[in-house]
Amino acid sequence: MESYELSRGRAGLTGGFWGERQELMRRVTLGAIRDRFRETGRFDALRLQWREGQPNKPHIFWDSDVAKWIEGAAYLLMDRRDAAVEAEIDGVEALIRENRTDDGYFNSYYLTLDRGARFTRYHDHELYCLGHWIEAAVAYDQATGKRGLLELMIDYADLVDRVFREEGSAAFHCPGHEEIELALYKLYRHTGEARFLRLMRHFIDERGAHESDRAFDPKGGGRYTQTHLPVREQLTAEGHSVRACYLYCAMADLAYEDGDEGLAIACRALFHNIAARRMYVSAGIGSTRVGEAFTVDFDLPNLSAYAETCAALAFALFLRRLSRLEPDGRYADAAELAIYNGTLAGISLSGDAFFYENPLESQPELNRHFRYEGYPPTRRQTLFSCSCCPPNLLRFIGSIQEFAYTESEDTLYAHHYMDCDARTRFGPVVQRTDYPFGGTATLTMPAGGYALAVRLPGWAREWRLYVNGRAFAPEVRGGYAYVRRVWNAGDEVLLQLPMEVRLVRAHPAVREDCGRVAVMRGPILFCAEQEDNGRWLADVAVRRGAAFEYGRDEALGVPTLATVGTRRSKRAEAALYSDVPVRRIDAPVTLIPYFAWCNRGEGEMRVWLMEEI
Amino acid sequence: MESYELSRGRAGLTGGFWGERQELMRRVTLGAIRDRFRETGRFDALRLQWREGQPNKPHIFWDSDVAKWIEGAAYLLMDRRDAAVEAEIDGVEALIRENRTDDGYFNSYYLTLDRGARFTRYHDHELYCLGHWIEAAVAYDQATGKRGLLELMIDYADLVDRVFREEGSAAFHCPGHEEIELALYKLYRHTGEARFLRLMRHFIDERGAHESDRAFDPKGGGRYTQTHLPVREQLTAEGHSVRACYLYCAMADLAYEDGDEGLAIACRALFHNIAARRMYVSAGIGSTRVGEAFTVDFDLPNLSAYAETCAALAFALFLRRLSRLEPDGRYADAAELAIYNGTLAGISLSGDAFFYENPLESQPELNRHFRYEGYPPTRRQTLFSCSCCPPNLLRFIGSIQEFAYTESEDTLYAHHYMDCDARTRFGPVVQRTDYPFGGTATLTMPAGGYALAVRLPGWAREWRLYVNGRAFAPEVRGGYAYVRRVWNAGDEVLLQLPMEVRLVRAHPAVREDCGRVAVMRGPILFCAEQEDNGRWLADVAVRRGAAFEYGRDEALGVPTLATVGTRRSKRAEAALYSDVPVRRIDAPVTLIPYFAWCNRGEGEMRVWLMEEI
Repeated sequence: MESYELSRGRAGLTGGFWGERQELMRRVTLGAIRDRFRETGRFDALRLQWREGQPNKPHIFWDSDVAKWIEGAAYLLMDRRDAAVEAEIDGVEALIRENRTDDGYFNSYYLTLDRGARFTRYHDHELYCLGHWIEAAVAYDQATGKRGLLELMIDYADLVDRVFREEGSAAFHCPGHEEIELALYKLYRHTGEARFLRLMRHFIDERGAHESDRAFDPKGGGRYTQTHLPVREQLTAEGHSVRACYLYCAMADLAYEDGDEGLAIACRALFHNIAARRMYVSAGIGSTRVGEAFTVDFDLPNLSAYAETCAALAFALFLRRLSRLEPDGRYADAAELAIYNGTLAGISLSGDAFFYENPLESQPELNRHFRYEGYPPTRRQTLFSCSCCPPNLLRFIGSIQEFAYTESEDTLYAHHYMDCDARTRFGPVVQRTDYPFGGTATLTMPAGGYALAVRLPGWAREWRLYVNGRAFAPEVRGGYAYVRRVWNAGDEVLLQLPMEVRLVRAHPAVREDCGRVAVMRGPILFCAEQEDNGRWLADVAVRRGAAFEYGRDEALGVPTLATVGTRRSKRAEAALYSDVPVRRIDAPVTLIPYFAWCNRGEGEMRVWLMEEI
Repeated sequence: MESYELSRGRAGLTGGFWGERQELMRRVTLGAIRDRFRETGRFDALRLQWREGQPNKPHIFWDSDVAKWIEGAAYLLMDRRDAAVEAEIDGVEALIRENRTDDGYFNSYYLTLDRGARFTRYHDHELYCLGHWIEAAVAYDQATGKRGLLELMIDYADLVDRVFREEGSAAFHCPGHEEIELALYKLYRHTGEARFLRLMRHFIDERGAHESDRAFDPKGGGRYTQTHLPVREQLTAEGHSVRACYLYCAMADLAYEDGDEGLAIACRALFHNIAARRMYVSAGIGSTRVGEAFTVDFDLPNLSAYAETCAALAFALFLRRLSRLEPDGRYADAAELAIYNGTLAGISLSGDAFFYENPLESQPELNRHFRYEGYPPTRRQTLFSCSCCPPNLLRFIGSIQEFAYTESEDTLYAHHYMDCDARTRFGPVVQRTDYPFGGTATLTMPAGGYALAVRLPGWAREWRLYVNGRAFAPEVRGGYAYVRRVWNAGDEVLLQLPMEVRLVRAHPAVREDCGRVAVMRGPILFCAEQEDNGRWLADVAVRRGAAFEYGRDEALGVPTLATVGTRRSKRAEAALYSDVPVRRIDAPVTLIPYFAWCNRGEGEMRVWLMEEI
């Protein structure tokens, strides 16, 4: 079954929730990230002129920061070219062309600091950087038709092919930080050159096959970098969560490309392990900062959640590939959580400040104590020393419409709802929606005989579907409503989803969430902030069956949910321990979307509220 | 007001709860600790013959381990002399006498490894070791009348007096790990030599007065070692919790000795800060393993509680001194929690295995994941690399009766109930009790005109007091019932306390405990173990107003509490997140004393249970 998502170029946003955010990327984020990267020498590093004693010593992953910024910029250029931005990118290309070695190698860190050490350091993001350069080059070519950067990266990829696949002359077999695998697949799809697919397959097949690669990670027996087992035997999500999900993306790509059932089985098992055992309700993943890693089933501490922005993002990318592999609404259900919550929480409403970690509880007074060494975070930052998340958000939000559809020979799948004009294989499809705050989506279809498969979110108890205004009873299978017919151009499909407030409980093995609920409305997770509710949020309860008033915080520009809950008196002088039964009093509780937290300064925040039964 | 606790020698246990445990010390713990210390070279280190390349390299705090073992042994010798044990101790004394320097200095680590460095390393427990030697020497002299070790330590203390007080020639002004201060006070009380009080006062007054001492702890600005402020300005408990409480002991000693109101005010504030803000319900203290330290008010995480055995123990020692300083039942209330829970949990029922940390929740599968690096602990150990807790328990339990009474000129205060024959200034007092599992205590009094102040525990809503079988209405003040009369020899005072099960709630700012209760009966904190209740204990609830059946686990030899609570189904395949309202089913819940946890292998444990209202 040939199916694929529509590339960024084939689907353009026209407004709405994501249209606004893409505009914010263009207006604020693109420039803000570039400025921070300039200030810290990330662009200058490409000149290879840094010398000991100067500020801004190049770091091993800086190339990937610039590459992701270029990729994000390229997506925005697809809608609107910008000579100044292109000049900057062309300048980067020129620097690489000038400074790369004769055999096509380019890495600003190694070429500046340690030329002899290339391809010797398992843990030093060399191939990861190349992966991001490839993704940037492909996107820039797609956006502008300028192939210069792409040609450079093809040369570099050919060098890697020789060193790692043909000669086996590197000090390790597979990258210590995955990414290049999925990038090589993109390069193969973009160029049609089978050698890139072959190299990608090589890295996938060799992973976990070499004791010597495992030895780089004595502590976790290779878990940290997913080398603990051959990939087809990896059935639980282990180790560094971003590395893991980039690998899983490539596994899903290859499962799809090769029809490799062994890989598909592993992908399904990994999905299940994450989504049913190791995922926050925000779809954040990675329960510990130690190794930025998965831990064990049901271990989902809220305050110390790592839940890196890049991890939720990478998980979403994996899920998008699973939706292409097989139509199963559970993939898009999880992707939706990741998109609107675990990922989006990583960027401020103003577009220029970020979170690296995304805990589900925040207690500023802990962060200020040396015990915590500034962790978990309670303020957004404009830059991190490891600043992978900001440009990752730029490219992710800049290409969010790639999540909207996949198409197979006879079916168009609508996975995620957004205002979007798409060029599908069946013709132009126009979608208008008030998602995610409203539950209405209208799709205007091109003529022809094919099926439209409309995703019915797992959270929607009821839904209604109309075709040209008349109720339609579709075939429902695996989370999708199939409308199979011969369409006239302009036929309208209307989906209505109920936007009710839901109290979500976690599995009884999730220790911190027992007796607690997360409040959701559609795909949006809500949270309580001190700004609205005062302190000691752990003691705030909502009532089972509570009525919530849906409103709006005009200052923040986001919806709110208000209810009357309960809490104890806030007398600080109460006894630390007492056997006097607790008296709970009515208290107003106001919630905002989790993605909008920490936009009003520092304060307590909490997702999981007590449930009063 | 002259008052003091009765020394170990003036009060002998005759049986009961503590009598059994002191017998266990004699029968098992004394030998077990000695054997572990022998095996690891702690005794041999005193020979100063260790050389590079050999196993068991001496450690800076090893002397204190041996000293605490001697002190514990000495307490047991007070009841029953033992030639073999004394020979060992005399052997230690001989080694020190042989190996000390001409000016009286002895520290096996420095004398073996770095003779030139003595008194230069702020963080290397030199004076701490001397403090424990002094305590051991005083106890051994009290037990046996052998003054040899005491004389050595007097010489050593005189050297310290010269170096630190007279010359100021050491590299720092105050010890980086407090202990010597309270030991010097003991030495002063035992010898009557005012110069030891003067040196103790010097260390107290100099603490926090020198920027150069603070500079050793750049991170916490001196908090770690309580040098951040002059001691009289320290009103919140900061830094390493054992160090802190040893200091507070000495502050309370000096406040008492000198009638120093500034010190008394600080002691009261520190007590309040701990007991009302920073203490686990077990009276464990130290919320974080980072620096084994206090953090901020109401930060009391259960799973990652540090709550070192030595910290609860040191807190109890501080509280005992506060009870001497002024009769206020809150001190003994907190001490009781520490004695029966936070401290006693540190030793196995078998007497030969220990906990260093005492979390209030245990999840073995986390401990086995590399995230946690073996922390928090889920198995008791026979020894630790830093094995301060086992011998500390030995000396603490070996002298537990020092908590029983204090006496002033006209009042005998009975603070803690235990089967004990005491020689008070008013004459012999015999106490018989079924405490802590029963609530009856009988005191048989000597003749004379004086008051008996009987502590009424804060947890006791009701109580009854009888004198010679007749109900008596005493004056009640500050948690004590004062029976003031002219006694006939053999007059009997009977106190009856209600041993009801209490559901204790924490302050609403204690995040992890909201919506939860700790089950207590008398002074005993209970907990649920997986062995009795299956896994996923976080989801176990007890009902408000539940009836508890008081029983006994014959295999463990401890009481149990059984009730019908509720929990969710234990189906592992339940969804990770669901908006289906939770259905809770009746479930038997069996609790055992917290001090008895982890005596049946590894498993989940939890103190704070959900409260179903």
